[in-house]
Amino acid sequence: MPAGPAPGRVGVGVGVLVVHQGLVLLGRRLGAHGAGSWAAPGGALAFGEGLEACAARELHEETGLEARHYELGPYTSDVHAEAGRHDLTVFVVARGIVGTPARREPDRCEGWAWFPWDRWPQPLFAPLASLRAIGWRPGGA
Amino acid sequence: MPAGPAPGRVGVGVGVLVVHQGLVLLGRRLGAHGAGSWAAPGGALAFGEGLEACAARELHEETGLEARHYELGPYTSDVHAEAGRHDLTVFVVARGIVGTPARREPDRCEGWAWFPWDRWPQPLFAPLASLRAIGWRPGGA
Repeated sequence: MPAGPAPGRVGVGVGVLVVHQGLVLLGRRLGAHGAGSWAAPGGALAFGEGLEACAARELHEETGLEARHYELGPYTSDVHAEAGRHDLTVFVVARGIVGTPARREPDRCEGWAWFPWDRWPQPLFAPLASLRAIGWRPGGA
Repeated sequence: MPAGPAPGRVGVGVGVLVVHQGLVLLGRRLGAHGAGSWAAPGGALAFGEGLEACAARELHEETGLEARHYELGPYTSDVHAEAGRHDLTVFVVARGIVGTPARREPDRCEGWAWFPWDRWPQPLFAPLASLRAIGWRPGGA
């Protein structure tokens, strides 16, 4: 979910899996690569930034939420040929959220909704589809 | 272990943990950031390249070895402030090697040696030190 990597370079992104009452928060992408697909909050890892710090920053920027705990999860490597992108996405699980999700970046997200882990909407943004393919799931979801 | 990322961008590298008879292959770095530290074979993930393919390519380029199996392992995120670098390193475990390690890039590596997982030499290259810190270990090492 990084925005704007250097062309021809592998980008590094963080996807935030907000787990709350057995559900996970997804939003439909707008106006960038993967438009129309469902993705987790997230974005590009800033130079020098910690993975959990990036997750907290992106989560807050996109949804207004804060979380009490962040834990590192798995990664996926995704080549988006049509968009000329290759991203390495690290997933970070966020728990103990404070607030309700707001649509803070209306040009990038159609809105947020909660889904059971086994019943995600389609189509999925490539990193989420890859995550599903490896069969991993966080505790409590 | 990537070489030459764009300045101010997080680079993506692959570290290859060659596990053989309970030992792991490390080499002392020369002539780049982290010179004098011990690292696994590895290098930058090329745009569009698979993680296992990158591991196989780097392993062969640096040691002449081939491996029968590659499996994805954990990742580390390392800020090398002194070198102005930030790398996300994905570790790939290589098993069933064919050949003996050769010093194929003498300007980059002082030589290869085998070590028990619990008795690595010092100092360690940052991604390996981070890997050690998370306490992960591959099966058979």
